[in-house]
Amino acid sequence: MESSSILPLSNLSIFCQKPHGTTFGALPFSFKQLKTTSNITLTNCQKMHVSGFGEASPETKAAKNLHNFFTYVAVRIVIAQLADTTPEAHKDLLEFVDRHSLNDGDKFCAALMRESPNHKKLAMRILEVRSAYCNRDFEWDNLERLAKKMADEANTKIMRDYVLETSHVDNEK
Amino acid sequence: MESSSILPLSNLSIFCQKPHGTTFGALPFSFKQLKTTSNITLTNCQKMHVSGFGEASPETKAAKNLHNFFTYVAVRIVIAQLADTTPEAHKDLLEFVDRHSLNDGDKFCAALMRESPNHKKLAMRILEVRSAYCNRDFEWDNLERLAKKMADEANTKIMRDYVLETSHVDNEK
Repeated sequence: MESSSILPLSNLSIFCQKPHGTTFGALPFSFKQLKTTSNITLTNCQKMHVSGFGEASPETKAAKNLHNFFTYVAVRIVIAQLADTTPEAHKDLLEFVDRHSLNDGDKFCAALMRESPNHKKLAMRILEVRSAYCNRDFEWDNLERLAKKMADEANTKIMRDYVLETSHVDNEK
Repeated sequence: MESSSILPLSNLSIFCQKPHGTTFGALPFSFKQLKTTSNITLTNCQKMHVSGFGEASPETKAAKNLHNFFTYVAVRIVIAQLADTTPEAHKDLLEFVDRHSLNDGDKFCAALMRESPNHKKLAMRILEVRSAYCNRDFEWDNLERLAKKMADEANTKIMRDYVLETSHVDNEK
């Protein structure tokens, strides 16, 4: 049995609100909040438990992040499809993307839907593609495999680089 | 058989480099790049294929994003564990977090490792917790379930809100 850490933080915002779509899916946080946290409790359970993501779990936060990623992917797919088939709609969508942030995918689609009847059709198409991509095409098993591999390889690299660097310094002395 | 969209973009940067750890895991992009893309090809395959993420797949990009998220979670867990047991190390880590960005988790750990022998121990602990959390504790099935649910519910909400809003306008006329 291991001890778990519970870190209550109520005001964790999820997405950075940078205008005009230059970033998406950011999960900002401030560790300054941690300094004011007095109510840290340790409980026993079979795995490390991290609360303190507001009312959500880490899985929910990660899913929300992926949700915006899927909107971004869907917008790219639709833009690519329109490029060869419907130049006018392609231009409309590119112009809209320039003026609106994709940080919050839902907000982006809602705004697109209200822009004009033609933009509404584009929004409906993006919603459809986003759902299909998430439910059918995205390789979830591959995501898990890659992330686990990344964790192991990154740890090895960080430690190896450190050893190489420090042994190099020792040799020079 | 469906057509897939291939969007080559070579210079897509992965993480926003905002200093001092106020955000993490951002995947910035610029759709201005899309305007200069001339080499869009449509090929036949059984699923929508989105290339154009540099040399990586969407799954790799998402895994890299999660990798930084796990570093963030690990830092939170370690900070919480230290708060009650080792106040001095707790203070050291909080101060380091204040001065260094967590946008790139590997860079953060590498820098922490080089700060001092005490910080090196903290870095080793964060690497260990990050790997354990990713490999053992993170609920991958739950992530997939939540993201799919989010996609369906968000689409329904966006369309429902639009209908409610426009029917309200119609009623007022």
